[in-house]
Amino acid sequence: MALDPISLAQDLIRCASVTPEDAGAMAVLTRTLEGLGFVCHAVDSATGGPTIRNLYARLGDSGPNFCFAGHTDVVPAGGTWTVDPFGGQVIDGRLFGRGAADMKGAIACFVAAVSRFLENGPAKGSISLLITGDEEGPAVDGTVKVLDWLAARGEKLDLCLVGEPTNPRHLGEMMKIGRRGSLNCKIRVFGTQGHSAYPHLADNPIPRLLEMLRRLTEKPLDDGSEHFQASTLALTTVDVGNAATNVIPAEARAGFNIRFNDLHSGASLEKWIRDTLAQVGGDIECSVEVSGESFLTQPGLLSDAVADAAFAVTGRRPELSTTGGTSDARFIKNFCPVLEFGLVAQTMHKVDEHVQIADMQALTDIYVQVLDRLVGHP
Amino acid sequence: MALDPISLAQDLIRCASVTPEDAGAMAVLTRTLEGLGFVCHAVDSATGGPTIRNLYARLGDSGPNFCFAGHTDVVPAGGTWTVDPFGGQVIDGRLFGRGAADMKGAIACFVAAVSRFLENGPAKGSISLLITGDEEGPAVDGTVKVLDWLAARGEKLDLCLVGEPTNPRHLGEMMKIGRRGSLNCKIRVFGTQGHSAYPHLADNPIPRLLEMLRRLTEKPLDDGSEHFQASTLALTTVDVGNAATNVIPAEARAGFNIRFNDLHSGASLEKWIRDTLAQVGGDIECSVEVSGESFLTQPGLLSDAVADAAFAVTGRRPELSTTGGTSDARFIKNFCPVLEFGLVAQTMHKVDEHVQIADMQALTDIYVQVLDRLVGHP
Repeated sequence: MALDPISLAQDLIRCASVTPEDAGAMAVLTRTLEGLGFVCHAVDSATGGPTIRNLYARLGDSGPNFCFAGHTDVVPAGGTWTVDPFGGQVIDGRLFGRGAADMKGAIACFVAAVSRFLENGPAKGSISLLITGDEEGPAVDGTVKVLDWLAARGEKLDLCLVGEPTNPRHLGEMMKIGRRGSLNCKIRVFGTQGHSAYPHLADNPIPRLLEMLRRLTEKPLDDGSEHFQASTLALTTVDVGNAATNVIPAEARAGFNIRFNDLHSGASLEKWIRDTLAQVGGDIECSVEVSGESFLTQPGLLSDAVADAAFAVTGRRPELSTTGGTSDARFIKNFCPVLEFGLVAQTMHKVDEHVQIADMQALTDIYVQVLDRLVGHP
Repeated sequence: MALDPISLAQDLIRCASVTPEDAGAMAVLTRTLEGLGFVCHAVDSATGGPTIRNLYARLGDSGPNFCFAGHTDVVPAGGTWTVDPFGGQVIDGRLFGRGAADMKGAIACFVAAVSRFLENGPAKGSISLLITGDEEGPAVDGTVKVLDWLAARGEKLDLCLVGEPTNPRHLGEMMKIGRRGSLNCKIRVFGTQGHSAYPHLADNPIPRLLEMLRRLTEKPLDDGSEHFQASTLALTTVDVGNAATNVIPAEARAGFNIRFNDLHSGASLEKWIRDTLAQVGGDIECSVEVSGESFLTQPGLLSDAVADAAFAVTGRRPELSTTGGTSDARFIKNFCPVLEFGLVAQTMHKVDEHVQIADMQALTDIYVQVLDRLVGHP
């Protein structure tokens, strides 16, 4: 008889695995996957501080290797819950607990889907799971380390589905096929201090800085692309710190953040920023830090399989979205096509996080159909 | 025999009268003026802290009352001098000491000029001196208090000459017939905090503040007027203080200083500022502080007398200027026409402050001619 996703999710929630703690979550998962025939590898890492537990589990030797990626670590409970955040209680058709939505629930659904899929025979290729304990934290000892470990072993992923909660309100609404990039820029403009009464004897850096910011913001960066919304530039700070009303200051600083789509790269934006600043000129310093490039998994085999499965189960065809913040998909995209589809995000990171039991059953059904479509039986 | 301006200036410089100290300076002056027949009034005031010594001295009862205004207080020596800053040494035709230029030298020249003037007989009207010990300090216990005291006594000034060092490099180059006004403005713009990745969900106050500053600075305030240079607006600070690159802040602040000519008033500029901010709109706070209105003594009797005297002695006809910072003339202008003419300003407030002995002799000659022209003998 196939595994029950609810019961496995409860077991996982009852491990208080707040990053960097594991609290037994990987053991629960390893035991369950070994019961299904998976070969499990603990990939621990501790470069960022405390030891982080990660797991790579694979069923089968042949290709293609279809991978499910996720994380067992959760954010702290925070706030005042009406239930035990690590109790895994089911009340009125809803499973409560920290990680129910983000994303122990989806992990349980996928493992239950594998067990159901295997009832109809073995897989044609391989099924694997890449599960980290460092997604909500600095993310330096998690997915990146497991991918390095896989590369060192010559092990290949062919397609990857990340179980992040991608649906805003209803299961089947949305999958994520990419994310915007993010860039931070800091500008320092230097001038010559002077007396406010004699501006012509000083070189006020403030008007030059404001002109730079005006040129950077006067036009939209773009109008969006096929799969992305328009890129945005948000001014985050401007600072001089001059309390003297009769003094023109010698320096002015500003910072901004750009979220950019696939019409740009970090390098193209950096060039545009530096060119724009140079048009205004003067003595300046500019530092640009690209914290992530934008990426897109072109719609095709993977997104069709998930969309068809979601439509078959929920009657909804998921929007192919690239909105939102970052996830570990930004690391995996360098290895194979990757998209994200999981439960409903509404209560993630909030008090009384929960998911609908019906949604967990439906997501399990969807994951079974995805396995049927992408892995299949011999 | 007439008084020697150099010797009196030395006596004054040897009193280390760094604001608020008097160090005997008023006693030197009182003794000298009483020797010339002046009636001297000590007008002490201590509302701002330590007691400040001020002097009002008058020779004669009839009008018109021609007043010479000045200050015996000096700024601290500062830096490393090659001579004793309070030694009053004469070296190579130059008198050294703190206050030599600003403005014990000019006081000594005026007193010497009075003594020479009186050698040809008594004055037709009155000659008075209004000397304060609080010009380089907060200026709350100085000229303002003496003017109040004069008004309470019903005593009237008809014309006033302030002995500030008005000549940039050569005696006779420049007199000051007015000064620009000064206004400080602080703006706070409020918005709604948010995540840098979702600017449409936040209300970023920075772009609104920058647009306000752009509108305030896009056009010159004016092109100058007959006697004034163009008004100026100097941005002095812009501050947000947001260190988080992923956060759009809730508030942004800025400050600026306007130096304005007689085409504006503090009130007209405040209206213009508030109207300009309102065009951009949103939730803002704006505070405007007018620290001084502009003023102008129309060229005429007073400026002609000084210009003719300066030309007769130096061969230079002084420019009628309204440039520079504030002086106590800003208080006196409410009582009678006032202008400023004194020694060469080049070393004022600097180390090794000094004046040319020849300039002091020439300024004494000029002041004698001014007295001849404006007071005269019966």
